[in-house]
Amino acid sequence: METSQIIQCVPNFSEGRDQVKIEKIIENFRNKQGVKLLDYSSDEDHNRLVVTLVGEPIKVKEAVVAAVGTAIELIDLNVHEGQHPRMGAVDVIPFIPLKGMTVEDAVSLSKEAAKEIYEKFDMPSFLYEKSASATHRENLASLRKGQFEKMAEKVKSEEFKPDFGSDIHPTAGIVAIGARMPLVAFNVNLDTNNFEIADKIAKNVRHLSGGLRYVKAIGISMEDRNMTQVSMNLTDYTKTPLYRAFELIRIEAKRYGVNVVGSEVIGLVPMDALIQTAEYYLGIEAFSSNQVLEKRLME
Amino acid sequence: METSQIIQCVPNFSEGRDQVKIEKIIENFRNKQGVKLLDYSSDEDHNRLVVTLVGEPIKVKEAVVAAVGTAIELIDLNVHEGQHPRMGAVDVIPFIPLKGMTVEDAVSLSKEAAKEIYEKFDMPSFLYEKSASATHRENLASLRKGQFEKMAEKVKSEEFKPDFGSDIHPTAGIVAIGARMPLVAFNVNLDTNNFEIADKIAKNVRHLSGGLRYVKAIGISMEDRNMTQVSMNLTDYTKTPLYRAFELIRIEAKRYGVNVVGSEVIGLVPMDALIQTAEYYLGIEAFSSNQVLEKRLME
Repeated sequence: METSQIIQCVPNFSEGRDQVKIEKIIENFRNKQGVKLLDYSSDEDHNRLVVTLVGEPIKVKEAVVAAVGTAIELIDLNVHEGQHPRMGAVDVIPFIPLKGMTVEDAVSLSKEAAKEIYEKFDMPSFLYEKSASATHRENLASLRKGQFEKMAEKVKSEEFKPDFGSDIHPTAGIVAIGARMPLVAFNVNLDTNNFEIADKIAKNVRHLSGGLRYVKAIGISMEDRNMTQVSMNLTDYTKTPLYRAFELIRIEAKRYGVNVVGSEVIGLVPMDALIQTAEYYLGIEAFSSNQVLEKRLME
Repeated sequence: METSQIIQCVPNFSEGRDQVKIEKIIENFRNKQGVKLLDYSSDEDHNRLVVTLVGEPIKVKEAVVAAVGTAIELIDLNVHEGQHPRMGAVDVIPFIPLKGMTVEDAVSLSKEAAKEIYEKFDMPSFLYEKSASATHRENLASLRKGQFEKMAEKVKSEEFKPDFGSDIHPTAGIVAIGARMPLVAFNVNLDTNNFEIADKIAKNVRHLSGGLRYVKAIGISMEDRNMTQVSMNLTDYTKTPLYRAFELIRIEAKRYGVNVVGSEVIGLVPMDALIQTAEYYLGIEAFSSNQVLEKRLME
């Protein structure tokens, strides 16, 4: 892909059972110039379809808007059942800046998408995460609380007035649209099998309970290895880097006489997150990511 | 550049003054499909031209062989003067594997180049660095010692018999050709202005005097900052990683009551060198460089 800007988009649709409907939605992402369908997976229990796209910002936005149109035609939330909480036929549309663009660029794109989706399909939206119009509207779980069934009433409150539209769509509900940073799934292993300790450390380092701003964390038992883990999502590694979370866990673990014995990175991680780590531990002065050979070769 | 294999080549020619001759040599690297001329610089004092190319292995080799032909036509070492030691009209040709190839691939390519250069132009060569036929022939300085003026005699010894050819070329001398890893220029700053200490630490960590296998190091004064530096070239970062050199300097500095206060990376550094560092300090288990987002986007 030889473009200067690359965005990722991971729209979630409320259909995980009917393969014909799923294929009709996915059709919007196939053979589209400037859009690459990286992955899609549906789950019958969740009754949900998660799609991963990358590509040129405008092209990705166009394909997603078209797919929302398809989803609204095919999905009626009044008869939708599944384990995963949902409030819309398309439930959430995160835009994630990957290359050559700032999070502000992704915020602009998310707002354009929200506007078009409202104008074309009368589908209202909340702007969430980095695109949110207020702090209490950043978190997806807060917006979605009450789900489709209680949403018609919820959007009447000043607090949860949609950013586009006013009432929910009668069959398609409402969608959360916004920009977010790439998540980094980063887990730190502890040399204790005591879940309580892992759980306490997780609470100490996570944002929700007084820890680092961009860390979500839970304690996990790893019974096969007779140890525990602090399992994290770093929601903005540019602001809360891996090393800070790692070192804080080490410090918190100390009071329990517990040691950090390793870590793991799950899935993809942006190169800059690793560069930050090397910069910190080696105290590298004035390093630029343009010094990375592979970055130069990409040009 | 959308090729699966990329090699870098940095041929050095013994002409840094005559711009017409320089341009004739460089001409071999312009507008060649599969070859990108990244940089060239000539120096009148050194009377030397250093060229940096990247591209497809075969194409780069072809362009370099052609340029050697031009250099042999234009340069007579019997009348060459300059500060930089030299033994050939083209003095040294390092091949550096950058992408999709092993150092063994680069060794093969260097041997093909040496063979062609001998067959086409009667120009003999030493294989050096990773391509060397014996340990005492790996180091360029050892091969070049005595320079052009003493080379006719030197190549008569069994120890320094050329790998291709037997006598030197009457006007063009002999060239060193070989594969090497990308160098990483990595400097570590010390909170002392005592050059003696920096110099001792450099000696302790470098290969030459009992230190790490792939480290070249010297002590440096940084008078403007009132500190000193251990200035290193890591000649194979896959075998001697940055963190090992860094931590060893920290340990050696301790005995002088000196602290490491930072570092710098000069020029380009392969992504894997930074990944290694992050892996070490965070103790990341089972990490693959395929998890780096940018690597996936390149595909």
